[in-house]
Amino acid sequence: MATDGGSYDFVNDVSSPATGGCHSQQRSAGHNWEMNYQEAAIYLQEGENNDKFFTHPKNAKALAAYLFVHNHPFYLMELTTALLLLLLSLCEAPAVPILRLGIYVHATLELFALVVVVFELSMKMRWMGFYTYIRHKRTMVKTCVLLVQFIEAIVVLVRQTSHVRITRALRCIFLVDCRYCGAVRRNLRQIFQSLPPFIDILLLLLFFMVIFAILVCICLLFQYFNTLENSLVNLFVLLTTSNFPDVMMPSYSRNPWSCVFFIVYLSIELYFIMNLLLAVVFDTFNDIEKRKFKSLLLHKRTAIQHAYRLLISKQSLSGISFKQFEGLMRFYKPRMCAKERYLTFKALNQSTTPLVSLKDFYNFYEVVGLQWKAKRNREHWFDDLPQTAFLIFKDTVVAVNGMWILIQTFMLQGGKHMVLFLTFYGVELLLKTTGLGPIEYLSSGWNLFDFSVTLFAFLGLLVLAFNMEPFYFIVVLRPLQLLRLFKLKKRYRNVLDTMFELFPRMASLGLTLLIFYYSFAIVGMEFFSGAVYPNCCNTSTVADSYRWVNRTVGNKTVVEEGYYYLNNFDNVLNSFVTLFELTVVNDWYIIMEGVTSQTSHWSRLYFMIFYIVTMVVMTIIVAFILEAFVFRMNYTRKNRDSEEDNGIVLEKEISKEEIAGVIELYRCNCDASETVQLQKVMAQMDKYGQTSMLFLGRRSRTKSDLSMKMYEEEIQVGNVDVQTSSEVPDS
Amino acid sequence: MATDGGSYDFVNDVSSPATGGCHSQQRSAGHNWEMNYQEAAIYLQEGENNDKFFTHPKNAKALAAYLFVHNHPFYLMELTTALLLLLLSLCEAPAVPILRLGIYVHATLELFALVVVVFELSMKMRWMGFYTYIRHKRTMVKTCVLLVQFIEAIVVLVRQTSHVRITRALRCIFLVDCRYCGAVRRNLRQIFQSLPPFIDILLLLLFFMVIFAILVCICLLFQYFNTLENSLVNLFVLLTTSNFPDVMMPSYSRNPWSCVFFIVYLSIELYFIMNLLLAVVFDTFNDIEKRKFKSLLLHKRTAIQHAYRLLISKQSLSGISFKQFEGLMRFYKPRMCAKERYLTFKALNQSTTPLVSLKDFYNFYEVVGLQWKAKRNREHWFDDLPQTAFLIFKDTVVAVNGMWILIQTFMLQGGKHMVLFLTFYGVELLLKTTGLGPIEYLSSGWNLFDFSVTLFAFLGLLVLAFNMEPFYFIVVLRPLQLLRLFKLKKRYRNVLDTMFELFPRMASLGLTLLIFYYSFAIVGMEFFSGAVYPNCCNTSTVADSYRWVNRTVGNKTVVEEGYYYLNNFDNVLNSFVTLFELTVVNDWYIIMEGVTSQTSHWSRLYFMIFYIVTMVVMTIIVAFILEAFVFRMNYTRKNRDSEEDNGIVLEKEISKEEIAGVIELYRCNCDASETVQLQKVMAQMDKYGQTSMLFLGRRSRTKSDLSMKMYEEEIQVGNVDVQTSSEVPDS
Repeated sequence: MATDGGSYDFVNDVSSPATGGCHSQQRSAGHNWEMNYQEAAIYLQEGENNDKFFTHPKNAKALAAYLFVHNHPFYLMELTTALLLLLLSLCEAPAVPILRLGIYVHATLELFALVVVVFELSMKMRWMGFYTYIRHKRTMVKTCVLLVQFIEAIVVLVRQTSHVRITRALRCIFLVDCRYCGAVRRNLRQIFQSLPPFIDILLLLLFFMVIFAILVCICLLFQYFNTLENSLVNLFVLLTTSNFPDVMMPSYSRNPWSCVFFIVYLSIELYFIMNLLLAVVFDTFNDIEKRKFKSLLLHKRTAIQHAYRLLISKQSLSGISFKQFEGLMRFYKPRMCAKERYLTFKALNQSTTPLVSLKDFYNFYEVVGLQWKAKRNREHWFDDLPQTAFLIFKDTVVAVNGMWILIQTFMLQGGKHMVLFLTFYGVELLLKTTGLGPIEYLSSGWNLFDFSVTLFAFLGLLVLAFNMEPFYFIVVLRPLQLLRLFKLKKRYRNVLDTMFELFPRMASLGLTLLIFYYSFAIVGMEFFSGAVYPNCCNTSTVADSYRWVNRTVGNKTVVEEGYYYLNNFDNVLNSFVTLFELTVVNDWYIIMEGVTSQTSHWSRLYFMIFYIVTMVVMTIIVAFILEAFVFRMNYTRKNRDSEEDNGIVLEKEISKEEIAGVIELYRCNCDASETVQLQKVMAQMDKYGQTSMLFLGRRSRTKSDLSMKMYEEEIQVGNVDVQTSSEVPDS
Repeated sequence: MATDGGSYDFVNDVSSPATGGCHSQQRSAGHNWEMNYQEAAIYLQEGENNDKFFTHPKNAKALAAYLFVHNHPFYLMELTTALLLLLLSLCEAPAVPILRLGIYVHATLELFALVVVVFELSMKMRWMGFYTYIRHKRTMVKTCVLLVQFIEAIVVLVRQTSHVRITRALRCIFLVDCRYCGAVRRNLRQIFQSLPPFIDILLLLLFFMVIFAILVCICLLFQYFNTLENSLVNLFVLLTTSNFPDVMMPSYSRNPWSCVFFIVYLSIELYFIMNLLLAVVFDTFNDIEKRKFKSLLLHKRTAIQHAYRLLISKQSLSGISFKQFEGLMRFYKPRMCAKERYLTFKALNQSTTPLVSLKDFYNFYEVVGLQWKAKRNREHWFDDLPQTAFLIFKDTVVAVNGMWILIQTFMLQGGKHMVLFLTFYGVELLLKTTGLGPIEYLSSGWNLFDFSVTLFAFLGLLVLAFNMEPFYFIVVLRPLQLLRLFKLKKRYRNVLDTMFELFPRMASLGLTLLIFYYSFAIVGMEFFSGAVYPNCCNTSTVADSYRWVNRTVGNKTVVEEGYYYLNNFDNVLNSFVTLFELTVVNDWYIIMEGVTSQTSHWSRLYFMIFYIVTMVVMTIIVAFILEAFVFRMNYTRKNRDSEEDNGIVLEKEISKEEIAGVIELYRCNCDASETVQLQKVMAQMDKYGQTSMLFLGRRSRTKSDLSMKMYEEEIQVGNVDVQTSSEVPDS
């Protein structure tokens, strides 16, 4: 859900000289109406952003604070402060060498950032009021963390030395609370909601692990399983398959049948219970997704009801007239021109009367996003061309080009002949861009893809032509053009379409993972910074991996390196790389054992907890991809006939009289500046002697549209009750 | 689907002295009816077993062959021959040392087994007829493999030496073709049906791999990526994360930013495309499952239609009378007694007339499996006890016992106090067994679980009491009793219920995997037998893992072992263990590189193909567990009100007159021996002075019942058409 917080930038400008006189005139006539319009617009925005209604501004002072807090500059400030706080860990000891700052400097920076956060929070309190403020959980947690950080920063400044500051791990909350990180918040909520079933199955997993540990400890008594603790640790690592078959080999060499133990253990734990884990999370995830969609729908409807009541309250009409609607839109979407407003109104109005009823008004969010354009008989000049022939020609070119690249790549030749193909793609790109206009052209994932591939190819050619050595890697990316080939097959189109749709959500999931990384990196740095170094772990079982020996064999110097000492927690960047290696879980026990041998065996807890946390997040990611893909495929299967998905398209006709009426309305309101577009339309109609004109409203299909269609049967929207809106989740 | 092939054992005994006279009498009256009954029963069996109708026996000779082929002794013969052929690989060179047989011996054994297969196939041809036989694909493939095996076995006998016999890998087909391995066949079909989308995504995966390989080969030029082949191999291994972070470390130590390459590669390939693979397979799997259910339903309906037509053909009635039904059941389920037959007939008959219409007859398969019992007012004496109080008491005992075990296990004490709890469980077990009868008691998964846990605990106590050292491991299994604790929570009950339901299918999937293992083991043995041995690979990069050095340090002899030479293909058992290690994919490249360094670099193909095959099967297993679990959870959610799942229960009342009528019918047919049960019921009714008696039919809910309920809306059963039955898949 995009935050259209920009709507209020203009509200503040209402008293500017240009339009001020007109407004004040109109205000004197209907000042109360203006207040209603504004409040209705706020309700609609709250519905769109999934803000709880109990934080709705209750008086003029609160409204001012609300307007101050809800706009992009403020959001940007929130974001930069949060990022500054997070990035400080690059400069605080243990710092990245080239970014090291004095304690005085970074502590001052931190205090500055924290003061900004205090300012932000006080503005929020002004808007919500004290009582609502302490009821709002997320804000309260933020306040507590802020307090702790403040005290610690002052302590650092006073003592002039950094103490063990694990609480820095909590800095993430400032980022999570940003308005722009709504998706991350949603992910975190979904993760926490999936936790109870996850933990249940995890207990089952651990239970079997303990049983096997006892069994192996008593019965086998091999090298790696001599104590219960060792058995447990090794079985835990075995679950991630990192030490398999290494732990098995000693016992296997003594008794070949001991492999049965390992096979049974891995079959039960890895291939059964781990999959069960995925199944449980996937199931919970699906269920939450459905319930979330339902409650979001309810929340939006409640917002629309609130707005509707405000719009009809003054005169008890049976619906909203265009005048009221126009007033609302002035606050809700100030950048919209009069033509678009009238078309939106017409699109909402399903009845024959000039009033929009509540039932029609329910479609507000679906209709308001439409982009309106006059319908021409031929939309683009190239619509006339024989489409299929052109497409087949294009596909052939793509295929031939693909073969060409494949051959060339394997012969590692330069590609001067590419110019031919590139010209073709360039011409296609130019034609499409001029036809559709650059913005519409780039709004489609496929066009964006075509564009970037062509651009890369072009750059590659330039690099080749001018022999620019350092950019040679662009030439190497040439095979990416082969991706065009994948467009030819329907399944790939589906997969790639899903990928385009998934991308924003994947990015937010990645960000969520990074936030976990950050917390773990801070904790890791506080505890394990400087723990591992070359030849550090010569007494442990993983000594080889940490070795760094400068041996002389004959007359040559051979360096024997284990390299694992590079996987340390010496600064944030190193920690992130180490954590990524832990995420991939291959040989992670080497890192764990290295650190453990240098610190205490409680360090293992850190690594195990990290493994479980990443397992949760990864399972969620898998569940999410599964859900999105299966959803998409089911949708395609349900709508096999309407194969080409052109998004939502709506057609509306406006007559000359209507336009004249709207212009008249604006003229009376002294808003003549907004009717420029309408007057142009009038002029055009006069020119061609038309009495009416057709307009097309378009927008791309969102997940919400798809969900609506898929859950049609399950969600009895008709039975929606206002009272149930209290269940709406927090954004 | 259980094969009830036993139905014809008795048909052959029809002319036995005991009942022969009667039958011949009846036969003279309605011999043609008997033929109809038999054919109808065959149709119903074909419907149940999902046999194609074009293999339906067409004449008396074919019928005799059909009856010969479709019974348990024949199935067992099929199975033993197949197993014998498979197990021969234990004795053929390279053989397991203690099982080695002379070439003359094992070649003769093989020829013998092959002759038996020839006999089986000729019987089948007699049943199907030549034309149908060559149309039946599976049988044709089997014939071809048989021919090749025959020729090879003779060649071995003549040359007195084993040549490279890769075709032995095809021996699995004999096992797959067994009647008892229907589930494995279904799995294989599902795997092959999931292949096209799987391969599509695999290509995408390989495509990115090639691009990254070229990129890394040109730009990085590090140790592991010096040639395109090395790059490709290392990136393939990296995809399985087996050599991560090892391949990264050298470049990481030179330039820290090179880790970006690996992070991007793993993020795209491992975390995105691999999950996409799972998603695509899961989606295809689900779709196939739904379509399969629909076509199976259609097939059964067609079978019922065929049977119905045969049963009403003689007299053109509007339905099946009990006399006809009884005749059918004599062939379809000869072991059923008259009482059960009549109750089944009554359960089928929804109309007021004494005839079963086609619509009612459609429920045949659902009703025929019911177990009938007279309904008592109180079903078991313990139904009278205050249920909830008793359950709470039991749960408390289980919980206390759980705590007790937990404490004891961690203190590793003996458990003499266990006697108390064991007595409680023993008494509960005894009461339940006497109340329900041993067979009904053990038919529930939970009871079976309770029983085995109690048995183990009892054995453990005995072992402890008599100090039997070798069986000490039973004591260790005591914590398994803790599993009882899991019964207390609903989610675990659900999970474990799903597990019980999954078990047969999981077993068949495991068997499918073993069949793949077998084929790969044979190929591996033919190519790599004897390839690796201690210190074999000193020139390769994985030399350490194959080292076996006897060093003297000071005055102690230290053996440095890498152990990996144990992972060889020297005999079938070793090959299986090696393949399992390859399946777990940790460090599998060490095995691959070891073998490759001793043979040619084409050997890598074997390992990579094996990886992809296991990936397919594992993905299917994951998809299957996911599907089953999500299905179950959705089902539970849909039927939240009817929480306790007691299976299918049907109630039918029979009056005294009806029983008298049935007895009369049998008396006239001289089948008085079958009415013993009915006469008992009569006597009982006389004793208590009842005029009618209630019977309860019970069976456990099968997947098919669940599917029927879940897909209700999607499967419009009413529109089923006979013509569409040709689409039914082969069993």
